[in-house]
Amino acid sequence: MNSLNIKIIYRFLGITAILNGLFMFIAFPFSFFNEENEAWGILNAGIITIFIGLLLYLFNKPKNTNIQKKEGYLIVTLGWLTLSITGMLPYLLSGAIPSIPDAFFETISGYSTTGSSILKDIEIMPKGILFWRSATHWIGGMGIIVLTIAILPLLGIGGMQLFMAEAPGPSADKLHPRITDTAKRLYLIYVVLTFAEFFLLKVAGMTWFDALNHAMATVSTGGFSTKNASIAHYNHLPFVQYIITFFMLVAGTNFVLTYFALKGKIQKVFQSEEFRYYLFGIIGVSSLIIILIYHFQDPSLETSINHPKVFGDLEYAIRHSLFMVTSVVTTTGFVSADFTMWNFFATGIFFALFFTGGSAGSTSGGVKVVRHIVMLKNSFLEFKKALHPNAIIPVRYDGKSVSQTIVFNILSFFIIYMFIFIMASVTLNLLGLDFVSALGAAASSLGNIGPAIGSVSPVDNFAHLSTSAKWFCSFLMLIGRLELFTVLILFTPFFWRKN
Amino acid sequence: MNSLNIKIIYRFLGITAILNGLFMFIAFPFSFFNEENEAWGILNAGIITIFIGLLLYLFNKPKNTNIQKKEGYLIVTLGWLTLSITGMLPYLLSGAIPSIPDAFFETISGYSTTGSSILKDIEIMPKGILFWRSATHWIGGMGIIVLTIAILPLLGIGGMQLFMAEAPGPSADKLHPRITDTAKRLYLIYVVLTFAEFFLLKVAGMTWFDALNHAMATVSTGGFSTKNASIAHYNHLPFVQYIITFFMLVAGTNFVLTYFALKGKIQKVFQSEEFRYYLFGIIGVSSLIIILIYHFQDPSLETSINHPKVFGDLEYAIRHSLFMVTSVVTTTGFVSADFTMWNFFATGIFFALFFTGGSAGSTSGGVKVVRHIVMLKNSFLEFKKALHPNAIIPVRYDGKSVSQTIVFNILSFFIIYMFIFIMASVTLNLLGLDFVSALGAAASSLGNIGPAIGSVSPVDNFAHLSTSAKWFCSFLMLIGRLELFTVLILFTPFFWRKN
Ligand SMILES: [K+]
Ligand SMILES: [K+]
Repeated sequence: MNSLNIKIIYRFLGITAILNGLFMFIAFPFSFFNEENEAWGILNAGIITIFIGLLLYLFNKPKNTNIQKKEGYLIVTLGWLTLSITGMLPYLLSGAIPSIPDAFFETISGYSTTGSSILKDIEIMPKGILFWRSATHWIGGMGIIVLTIAILPLLGIGGMQLFMAEAPGPSADKLHPRITDTAKRLYLIYVVLTFAEFFLLKVAGMTWFDALNHAMATVSTGGFSTKNASIAHYNHLPFVQYIITFFMLVAGTNFVLTYFALKGKIQKVFQSEEFRYYLFGIIGVSSLIIILIYHFQDPSLETSINHPKVFGDLEYAIRHSLFMVTSVVTTTGFVSADFTMWNFFATGIFFALFFTGGSAGSTSGGVKVVRHIVMLKNSFLEFKKALHPNAIIPVRYDGKSVSQTIVFNILSFFIIYMFIFIMASVTLNLLGLDFVSALGAAASSLGNIGPAIGSVSPVDNFAHLSTSAKWFCSFLMLIGRLELFTVLILFTPFFWRKN
Repeated sequence: MNSLNIKIIYRFLGITAILNGLFMFIAFPFSFFNEENEAWGILNAGIITIFIGLLLYLFNKPKNTNIQKKEGYLIVTLGWLTLSITGMLPYLLSGAIPSIPDAFFETISGYSTTGSSILKDIEIMPKGILFWRSATHWIGGMGIIVLTIAILPLLGIGGMQLFMAEAPGPSADKLHPRITDTAKRLYLIYVVLTFAEFFLLKVAGMTWFDALNHAMATVSTGGFSTKNASIAHYNHLPFVQYIITFFMLVAGTNFVLTYFALKGKIQKVFQSEEFRYYLFGIIGVSSLIIILIYHFQDPSLETSINHPKVFGDLEYAIRHSLFMVTSVVTTTGFVSADFTMWNFFATGIFFALFFTGGSAGSTSGGVKVVRHIVMLKNSFLEFKKALHPNAIIPVRYDGKSVSQTIVFNILSFFIIYMFIFIMASVTLNLLGLDFVSALGAAASSLGNIGPAIGSVSPVDNFAHLSTSAKWFCSFLMLIGRLELFTVLILFTPFFWRKN
């Protein structure tokens, strides 16, 4: 234990808290200029958070700046917890969400970019609080970018080495080699995407406040909406939905590829195997869903959502299919239509999509497409190896051989993911959810998606869960977001042993 | 293609058909002495089957007796298909099951020891046909024993090398080294277990006919019953249920261990890590279910099964919990009570148990306990490796290091299993089953269990499935029973390439 550089951990947590508090100061005017009483609660939360941050920062001057693996794991997990614990102060101090389990759930749902909510009526919430909800998504998305670029490859878990091989490196056609510089460029893209979507949504007919919030919730693949009906609120404005679909697609794409695209190197984007599977997968599954909606919608399944067919039946089917498939695959979780109300088969497909995830190096959660590619290719090779056991046939990805170690990491990651999913389903079942809702809530929380099936379907929320089920889902969102290992390794005895 | 030794494949299929026909001759007197019209259909089926078998055998004199991997795969898959195609003749020719998809489903459900049925009323079936149903289980169980001992290790798939390492070998305390000799000994155990259970069930109050059929369906972990209510028919005879529970437990145990147990070497049985996990796993989960039944049975969930509480509430809870947990883990699929009617949580636990499977080297299907042990241990090691990436820490099983290749095979097997499960659920969803029933039917068919959840729950049957869903489930039962690879490899292009 002595070998851990505790001071540098505290110092990082201090910086995290200070940044978080500054965002609360940004939320304050949204309440203040709308003459909401909650303004002062938000301001106080900001002051307290920055004060805590400063204490942690100033009283921990590390003698050396060595960060090793163990410090890395602790910084990531405790960093997200610091965000979540200070981040619920605006809800609690303003009285907007008075209960701690509810406030914690809503906060971690924000920072983990899950977007599940315990709020029954979102539209009566003060503007400052609504902005703060979106801000937790946006901050969480920033956290994920730095996590993926700077920390996961260092920790070398779940095959993330594979993805980072194509990011920062010494070669000239790669992104700028230094990590801090890479992070800066990706943050710039993140900010640019947010403002671009904000602007387009305003033009397409949203208020500027709603446009800003939805833009923040899109680029982070978060999914909190300022409307009770989520994006189904805009079913009379098809362009709003197409714009959001496009930005969800971008947010679920490796940010390094978006960087190349913005530099005009479109051919580099399509050279990425993950991007091809991701894009054509979404198009393929959407096409299937279009056919289902257009030809086989089950009239006995009625939805509470209003669906004006602005441009006729076919456009309706295309728009909602593309929107919902992209929303689930990118793990954004916005809702334009309730997929559980199309027909049985659509529910099954969407449940399977709960396990795809978007691209590595994006803000999306879940298993991620690159892992599926490697698993799929390895499965085919297993058949070859069954015939020719002594042949050495490596998995090839992006034209290069993938080391056996990385394939092994990825297979293990997926098995641990499925194992946690099954145990979590059984646990949520025990905590009172019915069978289908338990499967849905577990898959959705772990994959940071948001809506699920059963009693937590796209038109429901998580308000009715028991307190223990809310804590448990909060935990699932956290471990899902941090690629399982980062959190769970802290529960192993050998982590705390001196080596 | 020329390189394939086609003649020896045909010759093996001929032997298979002849053996199958002989069992039909055994079924004949059950009908004949009960003066059933169906007797002649069964006899004709036997004559035709043996005639086909003789043709295949006599007209294929192979020049050499070389069997290589490709012949191995073909013999196994085509062998099961030969059984199933000839095996449906008694149903078709007697008119007991007139439709081909139904007859094929019932037959492959028999040989794959799944035990799902399309019969709505079992008790009106002629005795000869009921015996034939049980016989398909019993033959299927014999097939699995020879498959596991002689063929799977040769093909080296899904980590089965690991299990066979402890079966036939040169060491003195191992089973007799020669494979044919091993097979003979295990068949002797199989026969002895069947007669022992037959005798005990008769003593406990079954008719001799029902005792024989249930014994055959138990030792093969098949699960066809001669009663509509399955073993719930005997809810007034607790000892019948305890006897069946015990024999299910034995049938799900590695037959090599049963051999040692019968030789008096009980300590060797408990030295097996798989057996310890298997036994204590069943006891642990049963204990949990006992608590659920005893304290938390949901009174709003009503079952159609009659449950006389012969020895009071506690014994009732213990008996049904042990029975149903053992039935699902061993993939037997007998039903004493409808687990979906205890409470939500029990359904979740049983669904998770659908993926355990019994022991390798038993007649049970599914993933198998040994694979779970290796996956679980490997998962823990992945956490260690995340901290110490250069340390070489092998998975240990039964006190020995498991080679990385075998661990890799097992991880891949499980991922392919889950992948097929998900695709199968979506497909069954498409073929008209609702979400829960599709998950249940896919898991149950692939794991050769029998009853499932939803509209194919323990008190339902598969009669209401569409014809295409029946064909699809038949396919799932076949590939599940033959450890996936054996069948699926025939669909790869490289299998059919000359090497
Ligand atoms: K989300
Ligand atoms: K079975």
